[in-house]
Amino acid sequence: MKNYEIAVIAGDGIGKEVVPASLKVLEAVAEIHGGLNFKYKEFPWSSEYYVEHGKMMPDDGLDILQNFDAIFLGAIGNPDLVPDHVSLWGLLIKIRREFEQQINIRPAKYFKGLRSPLVNPNDFDLIVVRENSEGEYSEVGGKIHKGEEEIAIQNAVFTRKGTERAMRYAFELAKKRRGHLSSATKSNGIVHSMPFWDSVFNEVKKDYPEVKTASYHIDALSAFFVTRPQEFDVIVASNLFGDILTDISGAIMGSIGIAPAANINLNGKYPSMFEPVHGSAPDIFGKGIANPIGQIWTAKMMLDHFGEQELGQKLLETVEEVTKDGIKTGDIGGSFTTVEVADEICNRLKKLASV
Amino acid sequence: MKNYEIAVIAGDGIGKEVVPASLKVLEAVAEIHGGLNFKYKEFPWSSEYYVEHGKMMPDDGLDILQNFDAIFLGAIGNPDLVPDHVSLWGLLIKIRREFEQQINIRPAKYFKGLRSPLVNPNDFDLIVVRENSEGEYSEVGGKIHKGEEEIAIQNAVFTRKGTERAMRYAFELAKKRRGHLSSATKSNGIVHSMPFWDSVFNEVKKDYPEVKTASYHIDALSAFFVTRPQEFDVIVASNLFGDILTDISGAIMGSIGIAPAANINLNGKYPSMFEPVHGSAPDIFGKGIANPIGQIWTAKMMLDHFGEQELGQKLLETVEEVTKDGIKTGDIGGSFTTVEVADEICNRLKKLASV
Ligand SMILES: CC(C)[C@H](C(=O)O)[C@@H](O)C(=O)O
Ligand SMILES: CC(C)[C@H](C(=O)O)[C@@H](O)C(=O)O
Repeated sequence: MKNYEIAVIAGDGIGKEVVPASLKVLEAVAEIHGGLNFKYKEFPWSSEYYVEHGKMMPDDGLDILQNFDAIFLGAIGNPDLVPDHVSLWGLLIKIRREFEQQINIRPAKYFKGLRSPLVNPNDFDLIVVRENSEGEYSEVGGKIHKGEEEIAIQNAVFTRKGTERAMRYAFELAKKRRGHLSSATKSNGIVHSMPFWDSVFNEVKKDYPEVKTASYHIDALSAFFVTRPQEFDVIVASNLFGDILTDISGAIMGSIGIAPAANINLNGKYPSMFEPVHGSAPDIFGKGIANPIGQIWTAKMMLDHFGEQELGQKLLETVEEVTKDGIKTGDIGGSFTTVEVADEICNRLKKLASV
Repeated sequence: MKNYEIAVIAGDGIGKEVVPASLKVLEAVAEIHGGLNFKYKEFPWSSEYYVEHGKMMPDDGLDILQNFDAIFLGAIGNPDLVPDHVSLWGLLIKIRREFEQQINIRPAKYFKGLRSPLVNPNDFDLIVVRENSEGEYSEVGGKIHKGEEEIAIQNAVFTRKGTERAMRYAFELAKKRRGHLSSATKSNGIVHSMPFWDSVFNEVKKDYPEVKTASYHIDALSAFFVTRPQEFDVIVASNLFGDILTDISGAIMGSIGIAPAANINLNGKYPSMFEPVHGSAPDIFGKGIANPIGQIWTAKMMLDHFGEQELGQKLLETVEEVTKDGIKTGDIGGSFTTVEVADEICNRLKKLASV
């Protein structure tokens, strides 16, 4: 029996709907496998928790999480209760940083049964490797003066190690895929960090002569994700640029509610965290209509991480079939609830198990 | 007779094709009007100029430009000759900064005769007001250490004045349009500049109770430009976010080769500059296939700026008709050359003149 202990943080908004739905699916997956055993521990850490306790998680929250094999997270953020920068930096980004989850992997592909907003989605299949530990997301900076004279300064910090690590990961991934890596830059407008980014890219690429490379400014690249996504294989991007690109790649799949992500700790010192691209969507919370596929595909990435790629593949295929058969939520043109979609996926997985 | 002296900088790549084509169109416009007289002076400042002179423009370049009523610019950038950050900061961004062109206005709309990559472009009609003088585009920052330990720090600088100026401009514009203003933020990830941006927005909006407002994180907003562009009216964004959004809004029109822009000096001390959203596209330069519409629509924005809104409107309508009739370049599904498209627009304008 392979045992995995999973810390579950449903978080805010639709996180509280899609996470339980996805846990059911994980159970169905375990059933197929036979030799897999997931133990979940749920933590109520969220914006509501903040309102009660004045913090997003207890002081020993990280110590507690440290002992798990993975963290399965829904979504964080409820600006009516807590300003976003407080809730996110008190939980989601805190875990990414403190647990050295240096890379955020975000695949997107033409998904069977989904209505892409693009006339010609052309079977695209790409993965964004997002630098996840530094860059534009930094607590370095501050304000000076008041009123009319007020100035805010925000520092983006790019280290050689952080930049190179993300790039090497992306090159390795490209080697295993179609052998093409694109770099997202903006060195024409952002003249310190981005020329540095380019120079590291140009150096690292010498070690991967078998990988074809290209660099695009983020503005053009964002547009290309709309006009010709099929041309991209692996894309390496800074923290902010990766964030933007993956909401677009979610959108062109048909809904950002589909898009999965994995925050990977590469040095093995801490657990990795699995959290979809979408947010907590307070506007649709409570209606039972949130799309669970982003969270379920995220569970698939967790399976991959545990070494269960074959099972992960089966899960994803099942999700695609169910979607193709029209059992889907409203955001992607269906009329089923979160729970109905998850249940149908479970049923089909169980049928697979009994074959 | 109204006389306007226009400094013309075709710049690099396709700038050298679309600018002359657009000047012909401007001449046809002057003919319709009868009382308009444009005098052009062309400057060869470009990456090629750099190769010859070691700078993008002569030392007294700005003094020369200062005396013109407007600057009409094609595109700058040829990374094979000059690194982008050198060419751009030596010319395009230098002019934006030194001539205090604090706002960059970039409209996008569903355009007759264009094939949007979106299944459902839904008659969208939006304008991005981009802060054009500061923010993420800054020369503040640098590097420290070498090799493995190298660190690059990039400062984004947001002043109260710059931020508020862009926002007030956007609110005024929204008042004259459909009364809706969206703000592009990322205060959940970027914790100094963006919460500052939000707080200025929340304060300024008190002065415009008649304008409906909303704030979106840039990642979500980028996705919404793809999934529901018709919901947006005016959007106010920082320098970088405005740059990204307007490449996307160009893409959803059908081609970034369509998208126009105006760099506006608001205090009347310096000329404004009219320059399309697209770049120099070295890959297609010299083939005569570049889409001139972005540059021509940009000329329309210059006409608006000169107070000739009616004429500007006529020009845009003519461009749309020509496009609808299929006289268009390859990027938007036609088979006509840059010059053929411009000539057809001229012919139709001249017919209008003779009525
Ligand atoms: C060329 C580049 C510096 C420029 C910018 O980012 O401002 C361009 O993309 C634009 O949008 O005008
Ligand atoms: C919530 C926010 C801070 C987060 C990010 O920008 O990283 C989210 O958009 C994501 O992509 O995971």
